[in-house]
Amino acid sequence: MPRTILTYGTFDLFHIGHLRILERARALGDRLVVAVSTDSFNALKGKKSVIPFEHRRDIVAALRCVDLVIPEESWEQKVDDIRNHDVQVFAMGDDWEGRFDFLAEHCEVRYLARTPEISSTVIRTDLEPERRDHLAAVTREVKG
Amino acid sequence: MPRTILTYGTFDLFHIGHLRILERARALGDRLVVAVSTDSFNALKGKKSVIPFEHRRDIVAALRCVDLVIPEESWEQKVDDIRNHDVQVFAMGDDWEGRFDFLAEHCEVRYLARTPEISSTVIRTDLEPERRDHLAAVTREVKG
Repeated sequence: MPRTILTYGTFDLFHIGHLRILERARALGDRLVVAVSTDSFNALKGKKSVIPFEHRRDIVAALRCVDLVIPEESWEQKVDDIRNHDVQVFAMGDDWEGRFDFLAEHCEVRYLARTPEISSTVIRTDLEPERRDHLAAVTREVKG
Repeated sequence: MPRTILTYGTFDLFHIGHLRILERARALGDRLVVAVSTDSFNALKGKKSVIPFEHRRDIVAALRCVDLVIPEESWEQKVDDIRNHDVQVFAMGDDWEGRFDFLAEHCEVRYLARTPEISSTVIRTDLEPERRDHLAAVTREVKG
């Protein structure tokens, strides 16, 4: 039986940190299921993504390291997801360390290191106003 | 022999329009080679991407529809790329319509329709200051 990994996220403005953590999760087993937060679930959490759910979902689903994408619609679905998808490992970034230990009665729970070098791009973006203006312009220009 | 497709782009801030055009290019044949513009080539063109080359390259390479990524480092490399990778079809978005007709002596040249619905996200981003501020915040927060 394949060893199935499950992870959750919004994956807004898809970037290399998202990719690295998904690849790292996938490397823990043979099959990766990713639950992508819906816009309505994010609204419930008081969050709003720049990119709508359907686009975020399709980008994650297009990755070679991802085998299945499901919607994340509530805080309570995790145990059902673990059961329904025969999950052996629940994996999240270590910014969530300890928060999902209660799932350990259902499967292995792993917290994955995030990629430190990502912050450098961001710090650069943060520090250089020119780069930030450019980001705003690029985003307006996106035509597909 | 597989029918190989070749396309070019910067793929800054990877979004659904990028994915759709890559999938559409891939559907023209069996194998998709993508040339991703390097930061130095963009500088030469007076362009600057938000995301560095290595990250843009790795995200494109992680897509199931992409078989090979090569760097785009000059305007002149296209004929060599077509020869080196046994390319049958050169494909670009129709915003480049007519610009690459000179390659038709080397392979088929196709211009692909871009996804119209993408603009709606962008227009929304453009029109709602709240959404734009949110984008800036999210970008600063990206930690991987």
